[in-house]
Amino acid sequence: MASTTISSDRVEGTKVYNGNGDKLGTIDNLVIDKRSGLVRYAALEFGGFMGIGTDRYPIPWNMLKYDTGLDGYVVPLREDQLEKAPKYAQADRPEYSDEYGRKIYDYYGVAWM
Amino acid sequence: MASTTISSDRVEGTKVYNGNGDKLGTIDNLVIDKRSGLVRYAALEFGGFMGIGTDRYPIPWNMLKYDTGLDGYVVPLREDQLEKAPKYAQADRPEYSDEYGRKIYDYYGVAWM
Repeated sequence: MASTTISSDRVEGTKVYNGNGDKLGTIDNLVIDKRSGLVRYAALEFGGFMGIGTDRYPIPWNMLKYDTGLDGYVVPLREDQLEKAPKYAQADRPEYSDEYGRKIYDYYGVAWM
Repeated sequence: MASTTISSDRVEGTKVYNGNGDKLGTIDNLVIDKRSGLVRYAALEFGGFMGIGTDRYPIPWNMLKYDTGLDGYVVPLREDQLEKAPKYAQADRPEYSDEYGRKIYDYYGVAWM
């Protein structure tokens, strides 16, 4: 039986691909709601992609689908989505709030939990 | 306003104390349910404590309370609780299942979510 769980240290550093199998970047870290224990988002590092540099793109956890063939996560992101997506500089982690979370989820059309 | 979230890479390696302020060990990693995004447990490394070595003790997430004074988590664990607590060897991560999770939660008297 495939495991239904994954370790945080196995998620960090894992490669992320778009739906075409192009490598977008890697997962830098996960942001967890302290009270509920829910992973609110994964911070994706799109190093070098489209010249974006080291900004972090917060992505709702349930948008990440693991692909055993690619040994990485597939996220159905289009270039035009990324251009206007919520992001922050690596050294400037945002003060997270439910409002900020809802903004991220709304942007990607994912239901808030 | 204090942040309601925490980054996974700030949890890993954080020290853990008991209710008396004695250092028990550190958090090795978090185990996350893939589908729901819920942190099922934190794997505590009680290195050297009571001669236990490098076994990992899975602890329900909501048992960890952050203490700013100690700069670490306080977990109300008694020695007699730890002696019989669920554990596994560092190199031998268990195949996680809801059954295994419930066993951990039951042991510590924490309601399963």
